[in-house]
Amino acid sequence: MRFIAYIEGKDRPGLLRDVTIALTDLGSNIVFSVGFSSEGTSYLLFILQYEGSASELEDILNTVKDIESVDVEEAGPEAADLLAKYIEEFPAITKELTKYLHPSEFLDILVRLDEPLRHTIYPSLGSKYLGQLLRVAPQEIIEEVCRYVHPKVLAQALVSLNPDEQADILQLFPKGVRRAVIQYIPPEVLESVRSLLKYPPESAGGIMTSNVPVLHEEQKVSDALELLRKRHFEVFDVIYIVSKEGKLVGYAYVADLLKEKPNSRLSKVARRDYVAVDPFDDREVVARLMIKYDLTRIPVVDVDGKFLGVITIDDVADVIIAEESEDLFMLSGISKVGRSRYLTARVKDLFKRRFLWLLLIYLIESFTARIIQGYSGLISRVAILAAFIPLIIGTGGNAGAQASALITRALALGEVTARDVLRVVVKELLTCGLLALGMASIGFIFAFSISFNVVISIIVAIALASVIVIADIIGALLPLIASSLDLDPAVLSGPLITTVVDVAGLFTYFLIATTILTI
Amino acid sequence: MRFIAYIEGKDRPGLLRDVTIALTDLGSNIVFSVGFSSEGTSYLLFILQYEGSASELEDILNTVKDIESVDVEEAGPEAADLLAKYIEEFPAITKELTKYLHPSEFLDILVRLDEPLRHTIYPSLGSKYLGQLLRVAPQEIIEEVCRYVHPKVLAQALVSLNPDEQADILQLFPKGVRRAVIQYIPPEVLESVRSLLKYPPESAGGIMTSNVPVLHEEQKVSDALELLRKRHFEVFDVIYIVSKEGKLVGYAYVADLLKEKPNSRLSKVARRDYVAVDPFDDREVVARLMIKYDLTRIPVVDVDGKFLGVITIDDVADVIIAEESEDLFMLSGISKVGRSRYLTARVKDLFKRRFLWLLLIYLIESFTARIIQGYSGLISRVAILAAFIPLIIGTGGNAGAQASALITRALALGEVTARDVLRVVVKELLTCGLLALGMASIGFIFAFSISFNVVISIIVAIALASVIVIADIIGALLPLIASSLDLDPAVLSGPLITTVVDVAGLFTYFLIATTILTI
Repeated sequence: MRFIAYIEGKDRPGLLRDVTIALTDLGSNIVFSVGFSSEGTSYLLFILQYEGSASELEDILNTVKDIESVDVEEAGPEAADLLAKYIEEFPAITKELTKYLHPSEFLDILVRLDEPLRHTIYPSLGSKYLGQLLRVAPQEIIEEVCRYVHPKVLAQALVSLNPDEQADILQLFPKGVRRAVIQYIPPEVLESVRSLLKYPPESAGGIMTSNVPVLHEEQKVSDALELLRKRHFEVFDVIYIVSKEGKLVGYAYVADLLKEKPNSRLSKVARRDYVAVDPFDDREVVARLMIKYDLTRIPVVDVDGKFLGVITIDDVADVIIAEESEDLFMLSGISKVGRSRYLTARVKDLFKRRFLWLLLIYLIESFTARIIQGYSGLISRVAILAAFIPLIIGTGGNAGAQASALITRALALGEVTARDVLRVVVKELLTCGLLALGMASIGFIFAFSISFNVVISIIVAIALASVIVIADIIGALLPLIASSLDLDPAVLSGPLITTVVDVAGLFTYFLIATTILTI
Repeated sequence: MRFIAYIEGKDRPGLLRDVTIALTDLGSNIVFSVGFSSEGTSYLLFILQYEGSASELEDILNTVKDIESVDVEEAGPEAADLLAKYIEEFPAITKELTKYLHPSEFLDILVRLDEPLRHTIYPSLGSKYLGQLLRVAPQEIIEEVCRYVHPKVLAQALVSLNPDEQADILQLFPKGVRRAVIQYIPPEVLESVRSLLKYPPESAGGIMTSNVPVLHEEQKVSDALELLRKRHFEVFDVIYIVSKEGKLVGYAYVADLLKEKPNSRLSKVARRDYVAVDPFDDREVVARLMIKYDLTRIPVVDVDGKFLGVITIDDVADVIIAEESEDLFMLSGISKVGRSRYLTARVKDLFKRRFLWLLLIYLIESFTARIIQGYSGLISRVAILAAFIPLIIGTGGNAGAQASALITRALALGEVTARDVLRVVVKELLTCGLLALGMASIGFIFAFSISFNVVISIIVAIALASVIVIADIIGALLPLIASSLDLDPAVLSGPLITTVVDVAGLFTYFLIATTILTI
């Protein structure tokens, strides 16, 4: 395992040597080390390979004479914080450090640095490393890089990536920069990027790669093996076989080719049991399809059957994670964005993503105030009724959120469709019937322990049961309705459901209260 | 695209022929068709390949004489409902239908059939198809199959799968069945399954496959190609190279091997830049690692460096989806389960997964009743105060849920760690400060429009602003605290945060109200 060790000690000759000996004696392998001194203190940084724990390393380092403080973390985001602290003190080390860090690891450090320091780092990075960094960087970092790195270097950074990645990143560049960068990209590269830019980033075409071995059906097995020997492809365990017109005929595993006679025609060895997608298909649909049928790659063909490229399962995993974030945020009332990271997200953007939702929900929730105001006479007389408001609508909201999460998820995974509405309603009525019974009994006992009033406790129990049933059915039906209207079910779940349930629940509560109290 | 068409018409000679001609004339390709008649009505079912839309097919079918109703759906869960209806009427067709359906598609149908009908279907399936079905089936279906299929057939079904899949499914069998099935599994197969059963299903060892080409470092490139020619492997684009003691030395792409001289030693061509994981590592950690570093496969080695197997990115995609469901459910107050599907989940299990959460949240939320009761004197006098309770605590809950979702997600993706607590607090204070300002102004205007009372409106505005800030900080800090205690941050988010915020918000509201009203 890899560890980062940050050490402060009294500046004296031999300190670095003593620390190195202590670490080596423990059996750890020093990958990289650096130190600098300032005002009588030495600051040392180590990257280590060690098959033990961080605390063992800390213990051994603390035994070295003149060491004042030690901080060891396993490589990962926690260590990024440590490295960021060191870079803040000693920025000159950055370029050297990148040699030992995967661009993803380096990004974890970057986002923890102050913005002005980041600006000085970008131009110092090699163009290939910069390309790898742009591939994983959030929107905010990409925009910063564009401001501080020359378009020519940006073009060099891009060209080191695959065409689909280039297309992705180009779309995130500000318009002016994009135009400047394109001038420096060789025409033949630009050609293949342009053909990908035709497709929206959220479509199958936007995530496919065209860097795959494509052969003509009249060619031979030996031709395919020859091509694989000569060139590097992004997909290299499968070859795709096309007709004269470029139509997809089939595919063959490289492992299969090894088993065939070298002079067999590819049309003979082609497997034809493929499923293909359209470049304009939604990328999430493609992702779920690939996972459902356990496909590791899926060809993309246009309406005429022409082969365009391949989507690989590793791109799909990224899609799933991105869509997962979107769903989670929607469920919590946060507008979606493209590529963004919490630590680099601007406060004004976070505000914008949250404020509109808070406001919308506030406006719907405001009906509760009107309802309660309508019953203010009742509340003045029976003030204890107010005590149970949050409890009743809160429990309803939770039951509604549960039902909506179950159905939204089942819809997303294709386990349930809008056609299953009857099956869902029957199952939910049974489940929430049980929940209502259970919670009503507990609600009665609890309300009595507060109010010492049987009538109030009966009101609370009945209201609780009714609100759970109403909330559950609303929570289960809204996503189904959204889905049958071709809306994302997640839009109608989360805070919106809780709020609608609050209003409906409060109304039910006071209706039951007035009915029972007037009997 | 594939479509399912279900047709009802008057039973007459030539109806099937007329429908077939109509479909063929439109340019669709009939993959499968079946029909039966009952009481003067013909029921026809078609599986079609057609490059148009469902409504085009419906239109053309409606032109055929004596057709009474037509229902066409694109292949997918919606079509599953159609096929299920047909099977309910004509169960004898099941076995024939399975020939045209991927086991995942057939599962979509199964879960929509009545349970007794399902029981009659299981024994009629071929053992290989049954194996594929068990691979994707939810827990409930697996248990049903165990009750109606002989252990010997179950064993045959298992043996047709990869060892990691066999281990997975065996663990889902009821104990008695497992013991019976194992007797029928050939000892050499059982051996490799047993070695996988050592690892928990949620661990790296639980999802790895051992069906990969492994060669000794002294062997030659030609030996590797020979092995690939002779045997089928689950992973076949990479070979793994081990030492005499079975320690992992490195790996090589098959595409690389093609570029090497046949008599080169594998120790010379081995790439050594691999990252490996321990079999007991958490599978979600492995999944995120693979996605972060764009790995399509990762070797698993034990503490001694011995090579055990490989985890492939397609297994990881399944993991991501499973964990995604767990997180979403936790966020909505639903206990997690293993493999379950909404349509087959038993009501009593759904009840159990929801009731404990509802109860727990109820008990915490019940503090709100005590707080309001404590202020019942105040409420009797100023009843309008009660009107704003849901609005204030609801808005607080939403702000808290937003902050908690942002931080929980950033933690899950490794973008933020417990060490970043200061960075998070600064950013949240700025964001929620803006949100509080915005909502307080709107809250004031709105409260005045209801109460026509400046003092009440000031109370509401100040309470709203305070509650948003408190809720936001609670929402942001709880996941960080959970993470630093090595708990899943999602446990402390969702309904728990909303409830804690309700209590804190209510307390703040009445504190502000009494303070201002007594001035």
